Amino acid sequence: MTDPLAEFHSSDTIRSAAPLRYAKSFRYRAPFPLERGGELPELTLCYETYGELATARDNTVLVCHALSGDSHVAGHDAGDDPGWWDLMVGPGRPIDTSRYFVVCANVLGGCRGSTGPSFVDPGSRRRYGADFPSVTVGDMVEAQRLLLEHLGIERLLAVVGGSLGGFQALTWATRHPQRVAGCIGLATSARLSSQAIAFDVVGRNAILHDPNYAGGQYYDGAPPSAGLAIARMLAHITYLSSEGMQERFDVTRLQPRDISTAFENKFSVGSYLAHQGRKFVERFDANSYVTLSLAMDLFDLGDSREHLREALRASECRFLMVSFTSDWLYPSAQSRQIVDALLAEGKNVSYCDVATPCGHDAFLLEDDLAVYGGLVQGFLGNLRAGGHSSHVPAAVLPASPATHIFHGHRLDYHMVLSLVPPGASVLDLGCGDGELLSLLRARGHQRLVGVERDEQAIVACVARGHDVVQVDLDTGLASFGDQRFDVAILSQTLQAIEDISAMLDELVRVARCAIVSFPNFAHRPLREMFYREGRVPKSEGAYGYEWYDSPNRRFPSIVDFEELCAKKHLAIEKRLYIDTGAGVEVADDPNLNADMAIVMISR
Amino acid sequence: MTDPLAEFHSSDTIRSAAPLRYAKSFRYRAPFPLERGGELPELTLCYETYGELATARDNTVLVCHALSGDSHVAGHDAGDDPGWWDLMVGPGRPIDTSRYFVVCANVLGGCRGSTGPSFVDPGSRRRYGADFPSVTVGDMVEAQRLLLEHLGIERLLAVVGGSLGGFQALTWATRHPQRVAGCIGLATSARLSSQAIAFDVVGRNAILHDPNYAGGQYYDGAPPSAGLAIARMLAHITYLSSEGMQERFDVTRLQPRDISTAFENKFSVGSYLAHQGRKFVERFDANSYVTLSLAMDLFDLGDSREHLREALRASECRFLMVSFTSDWLYPSAQSRQIVDALLAEGKNVSYCDVATPCGHDAFLLEDDLAVYGGLVQGFLGNLRAGGHSSHVPAAVLPASPATHIFHGHRLDYHMVLSLVPPGASVLDLGCGDGELLSLLRARGHQRLVGVERDEQAIVACVARGHDVVQVDLDTGLASFGDQRFDVAILSQTLQAIEDISAMLDELVRVARCAIVSFPNFAHRPLREMFYREGRVPKSEGAYGYEWYDSPNRRFPSIVDFEELCAKKHLAIEKRLYIDTGAGVEVADDPNLNADMAIVMISR
Repeated sequence: MTDPLAEFHSSDTIRSAAPLRYAKSFRYRAPFPLERGGELPELTLCYETYGELATARDNTVLVCHALSGDSHVAGHDAGDDPGWWDLMVGPGRPIDTSRYFVVCANVLGGCRGSTGPSFVDPGSRRRYGADFPSVTVGDMVEAQRLLLEHLGIERLLAVVGGSLGGFQALTWATRHPQRVAGCIGLATSARLSSQAIAFDVVGRNAILHDPNYAGGQYYDGAPPSAGLAIARMLAHITYLSSEGMQERFDVTRLQPRDISTAFENKFSVGSYLAHQGRKFVERFDANSYVTLSLAMDLFDLGDSREHLREALRASECRFLMVSFTSDWLYPSAQSRQIVDALLAEGKNVSYCDVATPCGHDAFLLEDDLAVYGGLVQGFLGNLRAGGHSSHVPAAVLPASPATHIFHGHRLDYHMVLSLVPPGASVLDLGCGDGELLSLLRARGHQRLVGVERDEQAIVACVARGHDVVQVDLDTGLASFGDQRFDVAILSQTLQAIEDISAMLDELVRVARCAIVSFPNFAHRPLREMFYREGRVPKSEGAYGYEWYDSPNRRFPSIVDFEELCAKKHLAIEKRLYIDTGAGVEVADDPNLNADMAIVMISR
Repeated sequence: MTDPLAEFHSSDTIRSAAPLRYAKSFRYRAPFPLERGGELPELTLCYETYGELATARDNTVLVCHALSGDSHVAGHDAGDDPGWWDLMVGPGRPIDTSRYFVVCANVLGGCRGSTGPSFVDPGSRRRYGADFPSVTVGDMVEAQRLLLEHLGIERLLAVVGGSLGGFQALTWATRHPQRVAGCIGLATSARLSSQAIAFDVVGRNAILHDPNYAGGQYYDGAPPSAGLAIARMLAHITYLSSEGMQERFDVTRLQPRDISTAFENKFSVGSYLAHQGRKFVERFDANSYVTLSLAMDLFDLGDSREHLREALRASECRFLMVSFTSDWLYPSAQSRQIVDALLAEGKNVSYCDVATPCGHDAFLLEDDLAVYGGLVQGFLGNLRAGGHSSHVPAAVLPASPATHIFHGHRLDYHMVLSLVPPGASVLDLGCGDGELLSLLRARGHQRLVGVERDEQAIVACVARGHDVVQVDLDTGLASFGDQRFDVAILSQTLQAIEDISAMLDELVRVARCAIVSFPNFAHRPLREMFYREGRVPKSEGAYGYEWYDSPNRRFPSIVDFEELCAKKHLAIEKRLYIDTGAGVEVADDPNLNADMAIVMISR
């Protein structure tokens, strides 16, 4: 039987209130001005470091924690307490401490060693309590900047964080463009949804109405544990997905654990929440909870695409954004807005929406580590603190064309490449694992972006150092602004597109010209098969699908395609009609004699 | 500028604490045993009635309210206070009080006139408070049954309710099968999700930890208003959708209304919640909130399909289930589980998942009234308290076949009908507005079920008295058990199905045989067009789509279809190959000469 109090995989179960043995304190003994007014007379940040700073000081990865985290991102040795992100940070881990110098600090306003409401105000000589000034994510980042300066680090290889940590990473990228080579945001957004703010408001109201809260000056008495526990219970629900809770609590819903608690204990999910609430109040300060959750609610990179673009315009780093399909607190669409704004601004960005039932907590759990960890690892591996990656793999163009297009992409790629002007910026739609993009990079093209749907292919693309974003082509290319590329490539994908007319419009909107390759379904053997046998044409090899379950939903002929282009007033600038069996271009009646078409079109 | 405190459309804004001028009291002066043990020494129910009870006593509609509702479902006259469901109940409304006798009672355990925690226990002579016994939805229904007996009503035409009201309606249908002709459940489920229970637990914890709660005996002092308001604020978030909140609060998120409140008032959504919380505590008793929300959390018709089927097996009424796409508190999938179990048990059920951004509250709002109100109206109009509707519309078979199949369905219907054995039970997949179902009913078929995707078509089917359920055929027929029908019909839809092979398996799984009609894409003119012109074949008339945006994604020929059947070991029992232009059956080379195929297959 499932034990509802077994260590449910969640961010919270791996943290404790234990002293941080490897933590150091950075003390800034000067006034620290705050974004929303006022100042702190001085500042302390509690931080931990992992790995070695390279002589060139170019291998620092700053990890930013979420609402309830701290500086202890990973255990330092076998005897050390576990960290909250051991999965990701350590020797051989995606954030490899044998390669990178990792820094993690408790945020300003927190309660694990950094200046926050439980600190004594040097002025009044009493604890700040509710008088602690309103701090912002910008203030947290400014404090981190002072710490890094103190450590002699001018520029970060990367800044990485999930949730509130992602807010900090995005703030680093936009406020300090010169200081960041790579920005990684997981399960984050440009601002909270109104629903997420509403949950925070209810949680804070529970704290503020706890009679022990005493206007925030409870440090000499009992803390407002009931209110804080209720806020935490509520927040905890929002970190999980409904399907995850169902799986965990549903069978035993009426079997609460026999625990000692002042909270209702009639349902297994209630036991679990009571347990989480109790653990949290043992290690967290209610005033910090109010301070940090308010900072989250106030974080705002922009509410419209235009505002978001403005906010991101100054950034110079490469971005990796990762969302999780079942995260309803930071929904995938919010990550997509950031990605779209970055694309519109011509920034370097990769994006993946990881399919998972783990909800917001997914970025802290092992379940999807292969994907999000793989993405982070591949992204970091292609960053250079000095600037953009420019490694040129030893990709070799095929010496002789492959024998049959339908057995592979190589001939197609070769022909497509022959149409791409030297140095052109290219958007490759349906880029797979990035093979064509690598060929283009080997030819010296600089601005290359891939679009792909498959998670594993995206991981492979990112590992190759490409910018790739997850888009379902049937939903259109709204992510991309007008005329952002010289060339858009749609290679052997046209036949799977639902609305081909709309796709052609999109292609010549986002790029000055488009190269479209597709199998010609009016090729002689297919025609004859249909005419003589009355069977739906079926080609051989990789495209030899059955009529009843083919992924193809359109069956273009060369004549049909050209006619559609004419109807849409699209100019056909170049045509390559190929007999892939013979490996030759076809001049005589290509609609009958060619089995593959590669066409370059423009508006 | 949007005013966040303007009367946001929500269930709550139309209720008040005003006295109910038309309310009556039913007093049951005998012990009332409770399902979970114990008894109440006596029972009072506050109720209201609308319209006139027919002489035959066969026109009663019982309306069951949700957690925070009461007996005042509608205003009684122009001077009366608004009711909580004025949209639905009144003369000419979907629940038409000029036609039906409507009864609505405050639930047992409530705080608007019916026996609940604020009542004085005749034994101890003090208010029950937290000593009020645990009541269930079954107890609520039993109390309603006593009331109806008192009113001389043996059998209900229908019982209708949303949310907790839906729990009551389902309980009526399963516990008192002889007493209900129709059961309507809106935005409801067979049990709450673990996530929904978790929210309730947090809300109750907020009440129980309010220092004013005083173990539930607060009636002589200040009530636990802060705790109740926090519970309400939290619950209120779950009644709205994230997209609805975004639309309402996002632009003005930092502009709270200048209201006097003890709650946080920094965000517009916080103002709104504080306002809702305050209004709620003025009219609702915290102990009732605890009692009723616990009853909801304990409601359980079954956690597995088998348990659910067992629970629903005894029911004899017709069902209408309505869910709302953005309702995440009672997700559509939960309604679908009920519908599937009913279908598996061979019960009469219609189902629609209304596309809306209004969340759980949708069933109380005007936005989607045309759909859910239309469904309720059509469903009620086809109920007879005595039993099943058997009206036979004056549908007339076409005297002469329509000139061309591609201009309409009539010839197709005529041919399909000729293959359906007399009296057979029929599942019509893609039934549209129910035309074919009506033709079958006119021929005397009894067991008929339609499947359709379009909301308006479903409303039309229900108005015609058919059972129709909303299913996307591309997700399969998992709703239907094995061999539940004599015949499954898939008329002119095959070519739009993604996985035809799987669909054929499903057809002969759910029915003993299947009648499939489809256009033959190997018809001579299409072949010639392709062969001679090298153009993707395009038929004329209604099916004359362009190759690049056709809803068709498969292009079956008769030969291909027959070959697939052979490969799948499906027997072709009957074939009708038609030249629809000439209106004749084709014997000679139908794959060349027929443009339509109607095939009856079986396993």
